[in-house]
Amino acid sequence: MSFQNPVFIPGPTNMPESIRKACDMPTIDHRSPLFGQILHPARANVQKVLKSDSADVFIFPSTGTGGWETAITNTLSAGDTVLAARNGMFSHRWIDMCQRHGLDVQIVETPWGQGLPADRYAEALAADKSHKIKAVLATHNETATGVKSNIAAVRAALDAASHPALLMVDGVSSIGSMDFRFDEWGVDIAVTGSQKGFMLPAGLAILGFSAKARTATKTATLPRTFFDVNDMAKGYDNSAFPYTPPVGLMNGLLLASDMLLREGLDNVFARHTRIASGIRAAVHGWGLELCAARPDLYSDTVSAIKTPAGFDATSIVNHAASAYGVAFGTGLGEVAGKVFRIGHLGSMTDVMALSGIATAEMCMVDLGLDIKLGSGVAAAQDHYRRTTGQALQVAA
Amino acid sequence: MSFQNPVFIPGPTNMPESIRKACDMPTIDHRSPLFGQILHPARANVQKVLKSDSADVFIFPSTGTGGWETAITNTLSAGDTVLAARNGMFSHRWIDMCQRHGLDVQIVETPWGQGLPADRYAEALAADKSHKIKAVLATHNETATGVKSNIAAVRAALDAASHPALLMVDGVSSIGSMDFRFDEWGVDIAVTGSQKGFMLPAGLAILGFSAKARTATKTATLPRTFFDVNDMAKGYDNSAFPYTPPVGLMNGLLLASDMLLREGLDNVFARHTRIASGIRAAVHGWGLELCAARPDLYSDTVSAIKTPAGFDATSIVNHAASAYGVAFGTGLGEVAGKVFRIGHLGSMTDVMALSGIATAEMCMVDLGLDIKLGSGVAAAQDHYRRTTGQALQVAA
Amino acid sequence: MSFQNPVFIPGPTNMPESIRKACDMPTIDHRSPLFGQILHPARANVQKVLKSDSADVFIFPSTGTGGWETAITNTLSAGDTVLAARNGMFSHRWIDMCQRHGLDVQIVETPWGQGLPADRYAEALAADKSHKIKAVLATHNETATGVKSNIAAVRAALDAASHPALLMVDGVSSIGSMDFRFDEWGVDIAVTGSQKGFMLPAGLAILGFSAKARTATKTATLPRTFFDVNDMAKGYDNSAFPYTPPVGLMNGLLLASDMLLREGLDNVFARHTRIASGIRAAVHGWGLELCAARPDLYSDTVSAIKTPAGFDATSIVNHAASAYGVAFGTGLGEVAGKVFRIGHLGSMTDVMALSGIATAEMCMVDLGLDIKLGSGVAAAQDHYRRTTGQALQVAA
Amino acid sequence: MSFQNPVFIPGPTNMPESIRKACDMPTIDHRSPLFGQILHPARANVQKVLKSDSADVFIFPSTGTGGWETAITNTLSAGDTVLAARNGMFSHRWIDMCQRHGLDVQIVETPWGQGLPADRYAEALAADKSHKIKAVLATHNETATGVKSNIAAVRAALDAASHPALLMVDGVSSIGSMDFRFDEWGVDIAVTGSQKGFMLPAGLAILGFSAKARTATKTATLPRTFFDVNDMAKGYDNSAFPYTPPVGLMNGLLLASDMLLREGLDNVFARHTRIASGIRAAVHGWGLELCAARPDLYSDTVSAIKTPAGFDATSIVNHAASAYGVAFGTGLGEVAGKVFRIGHLGSMTDVMALSGIATAEMCMVDLGLDIKLGSGVAAAQDHYRRTTGQALQVAA
Repeated sequence: MSFQNPVFIPGPTNMPESIRKACDMPTIDHRSPLFGQILHPARANVQKVLKSDSADVFIFPSTGTGGWETAITNTLSAGDTVLAARNGMFSHRWIDMCQRHGLDVQIVETPWGQGLPADRYAEALAADKSHKIKAVLATHNETATGVKSNIAAVRAALDAASHPALLMVDGVSSIGSMDFRFDEWGVDIAVTGSQKGFMLPAGLAILGFSAKARTATKTATLPRTFFDVNDMAKGYDNSAFPYTPPVGLMNGLLLASDMLLREGLDNVFARHTRIASGIRAAVHGWGLELCAARPDLYSDTVSAIKTPAGFDATSIVNHAASAYGVAFGTGLGEVAGKVFRIGHLGSMTDVMALSGIATAEMCMVDLGLDIKLGSGVAAAQDHYRRTTGQALQVAA
Repeated sequence: MSFQNPVFIPGPTNMPESIRKACDMPTIDHRSPLFGQILHPARANVQKVLKSDSADVFIFPSTGTGGWETAITNTLSAGDTVLAARNGMFSHRWIDMCQRHGLDVQIVETPWGQGLPADRYAEALAADKSHKIKAVLATHNETATGVKSNIAAVRAALDAASHPALLMVDGVSSIGSMDFRFDEWGVDIAVTGSQKGFMLPAGLAILGFSAKARTATKTATLPRTFFDVNDMAKGYDNSAFPYTPPVGLMNGLLLASDMLLREGLDNVFARHTRIASGIRAAVHGWGLELCAARPDLYSDTVSAIKTPAGFDATSIVNHAASAYGVAFGTGLGEVAGKVFRIGHLGSMTDVMALSGIATAEMCMVDLGLDIKLGSGVAAAQDHYRRTTGQALQVAA
Repeated sequence: MSFQNPVFIPGPTNMPESIRKACDMPTIDHRSPLFGQILHPARANVQKVLKSDSADVFIFPSTGTGGWETAITNTLSAGDTVLAARNGMFSHRWIDMCQRHGLDVQIVETPWGQGLPADRYAEALAADKSHKIKAVLATHNETATGVKSNIAAVRAALDAASHPALLMVDGVSSIGSMDFRFDEWGVDIAVTGSQKGFMLPAGLAILGFSAKARTATKTATLPRTFFDVNDMAKGYDNSAFPYTPPVGLMNGLLLASDMLLREGLDNVFARHTRIASGIRAAVHGWGLELCAARPDLYSDTVSAIKTPAGFDATSIVNHAASAYGVAFGTGLGEVAGKVFRIGHLGSMTDVMALSGIATAEMCMVDLGLDIKLGSGVAAAQDHYRRTTGQALQVAA
Repeated sequence: MSFQNPVFIPGPTNMPESIRKACDMPTIDHRSPLFGQILHPARANVQKVLKSDSADVFIFPSTGTGGWETAITNTLSAGDTVLAARNGMFSHRWIDMCQRHGLDVQIVETPWGQGLPADRYAEALAADKSHKIKAVLATHNETATGVKSNIAAVRAALDAASHPALLMVDGVSSIGSMDFRFDEWGVDIAVTGSQKGFMLPAGLAILGFSAKARTATKTATLPRTFFDVNDMAKGYDNSAFPYTPPVGLMNGLLLASDMLLREGLDNVFARHTRIASGIRAAVHGWGLELCAARPDLYSDTVSAIKTPAGFDATSIVNHAASAYGVAFGTGLGEVAGKVFRIGHLGSMTDVMALSGIATAEMCMVDLGLDIKLGSGVAAAQDHYRRTTGQALQVAA
């Protein structure tokens, strides 16, 4: 096994040295006061990363998928209706989970590559005079297509209809990397995982709950124990979890959130935009196009790149792994074989990004695509060198 | 924060150096073949640790509590009846979870300090002519009381009644440390976590499912997605998880299980018995008694020690932490304040155990108990030196 | 290989978690400004640990032995006379090194177990009217015998004779653990290594030079390049070494010295005295005696314990290693077979010390000595519990 | 401090994950048998890496500079004559060391960028009928100029003159990365350090001594203690060092040498040639030239690249560090300001190399050189993709 090259998957990200060390912690007594010294500031930091003054932050030993399950089981009951757009693999999976939990999902089918259609959400909410819809699901950043959606517009749709449904946002591949405004957007539940913007190993579901979402837990009857936020809240009151907490990961989260806040969230977001812009320059340099339909939809954490018709995009991913020891992401679901993905979130520099771009170029040439060696690199270099003053590296 | 002294809590255990290093892994692409090279042998090893030839091993990014939820949600439906004894905090919590999932729990109340009453299970099963009972829950080792139960006797009760209920065993604080025989005992679901016998950080629920338990998943209607074993099985077929796996912990599990198997399970168990016997010799040297009612109930992973009436046992735990930087376990639930607990599982040597015993002695003297300094240590030393030829240390 | 038990050798010490992590550093460019950010504060901290306002601190990728060689080759010339007492293996080795470098060593033979005879130094210095003696060598703490010497008295002897010889002090097993006063004692060269009071891996020779010692380098003709302090000083002026520096160890030294200073040197020394006193209480509890002849000679970092005549003390060390996985030190040179040594410096707690005492007890009983199990432990416990308010643990 | 980008200095190299973990070892008793289990196989492995069947391998806690001092102080006496070419900074420094130790150095001045002039060595040796020359010094790979010399030709010069002088070779930046044949070339002393081909932190001088070199130690009178190979050999006989060994680094050396031998030395060398060829293709793509005068002199571990007259090559190194967080090497001595250096030894992949090349390009464009972005990258990509079947990555 070789760990020499960076990974270019949309999470887990490359991990900063210091975060790895914070996670690699000797055993402590998780019932001792030491744990509270990790737990409480970590939660407070996450609240700030969500740009919220009041969200209740919950952290489970789980993943983003467990976070989704936490969101729905704590606030909904079997038979409840939820509104959700399907515009990629991750919105699809969340819909599937809702259905398996007996929820009635009103699906807004949306072409992959497009963002959430706020206008169609608005229509559906306006039509729902009886407020049958209990929750609106929104995927902030579709990791499958590299598409960022406008959550503020979804909130506006709710407000326009004076609709009381909860706004649940999947921010798994955006929070900590792209601007996310829990309070301003009126988010009720935000969901993420440890292995994306927080640059940690997988193993934590991280959520923010609004007061309204907390209230909904009182009447929600979907069964839950492991993911029960009220049990978890009681645990926090005693500086504990209701079960054994993953102490090392929590310690890593404390450091990671500290690092993000010390760098400044807006600097973090600008850093991601700068790296992503270089990747996109390379894509244009190659004469290729992104899956995301328009520039305002471009994700700053992952780019899904369309390859020419008739070409199997997955072969790039396989070839990069076997010939060069580099990991890219394959296309998923509807875009399987049509796109390959470059993850560029978390601990990534322009210099690292250039090595990924150079590798993708070699692969495409190796596989017969009409790409000029160095063309994407040069385009990205041009962007990076013109913006180098804005370069901010992740601290150690 | 100081990490100089060992911990004496009943998990998370002290971690071997090599296991920490195996967990502290750089990011790899979890969709690459590398992950399969970790996943498949780790699952095969866990099967061996369970002493099973055929159990389906499932591993979730979760904890033992999530393991319990996996067991019930995958095999049962709301309204189903389960039979369970309550003889400590952990059996109590599992019962509570069942009730919250809409199961009808037929509770066999049992004095704390006693083992599972196989005779009363036998009565209940014999009486259940209509086979309303769908599952029998059994806690192999009650971590709260330091009591080991006889799972073979529970199986015998099922067999005597020719009862088809599933046998679900909580082996969280026994598996990997005390003899556990999945196949021989006819266990249908075994549950454990990473932070006990496997000496890993918390973060994994580890389960074995019998073919019968797998069959039950087809008709079970409790909602589940994150903990769905069939989704997980499909993931495994592709050398993956249905979501992002905790790669470092899985790599640690591969090593930990390798270490247990290389040492030899029976050697591992003998090592735990030897260390535990020294602790028990110390308890007798102090003139105190265990919570466990009889020697055949003594747990080899944790000892709950009764302090004299009127004395607050929890003060020992608090004093050990503040005065000596040593972590013991408090009493929980019915035995809160009446016992303190010494965990002695996982990466523990006689030399480490002696430091725990010496600390407990100092604490008890400091707090006014009539204990002679050195008395417990001497009794344990006597045991350890007479059995030193049997000493096996955990490999690095 | 098992790393479960602490070591009880007089260095390398047990290492704090945080120091190990500071040393385990990824490669940086040692010619970049980053290195200066490690080098300069580390040197400034070491100066403070020496209790000096002006000593030039030099750090070589080497060991304490290399430190001795640095001391003599930079300040002396072949044929020069040095005065040195021989009262243990380490003073002996330094004398041997001098002789091999063509120095004329005026040896003050001293019984092992005694401290440096300041009175005999005074006589020799008074007799040396022509100031033939260019340097006086003094071993502050004889690691072989566990004997601390009075360096202030040696300085007084020099002053009484108005003798200009350089005072060179081997503080390898004292600096950072026991009180050392470079300025107050008029030390000209102090020598230590990384693996003792600084709790680092072996690999650094650490020295302080007075202005007078620096001046002596101008006329000293013993050949030197690797250990040349003037080359090193020029390197430091450029935030560099004259060759590739051991960056990780330097980073560890920065943290270790920070930790000592944050704890407070006098607290560090008190902590060592407290731990050592418990060990000595145990020795008395066993009815044994220390090699050090009188209480004012007792070392706070290592105890050499005399075993009864006719008994091979080394067998304890071998048996502890093979039967219990615990490392003690053997007797060296004149006291080989007559003493065994317990190192108790650096990252050590009372709880850890008790495990070492308990192990030594088991070994002595196993080997037939008339020792009562628990006797030493009880004596040490009594000391530790009465002084627990003074307990200070090494920070993480 | 950020550790995200690889370093491109000619040592210390980027370190494989597994080697870092091997070095980060808890304290063991270096007098216990465990140490022998590290020491002996590490020495045996190093012998194989030297391609020798009989060289005595010595390892000191020091650096390559200490290795040179070991070579000369153990085999020579003040006033002895040695023959040495000066063709770069490192050959210069070794000459300087000899002079400071009172040796009479017969210097063969050689233009920087040229290899050792075997013909002029031959002349000097033939002229030395009285065998006044006791040692011939040869720098196998001049790290300052990126020039590899022909050691076999130097041996041939000695043989042609039937000259008995010892052949001492500085292989610091070649051994473990480029073909080195101790036995075949009749090398008497080979010197390297830990931080180059062995991919370890700095901190070890590593030497091979021929039987003839060992014999020379008997009559050599240069003073030495720390670096005395006979003391060290006696230590090894007892599975020890004459002082405290750097156990973690030794453990790292054991693993590193194992990794090199498992990969196969010739594969290791081919891997370095492949990476280096890509770097050289980039240099040609830029229209620049190497400092090394001819292709047969090109080093496979470091390339010194000449920048146009009037341009300060050092500005590239400074700009790369400040603008892109990437470390290159500056020119040293005669070529200061005229070249910058890319180190490409040790743990390096083509993908990493491409990121270094891309960075150098950006820097040169930023600083006004007439270089086309992507030009060097494309040339290197072309080489790497055509040779990808030969790619061998360093194991984890």
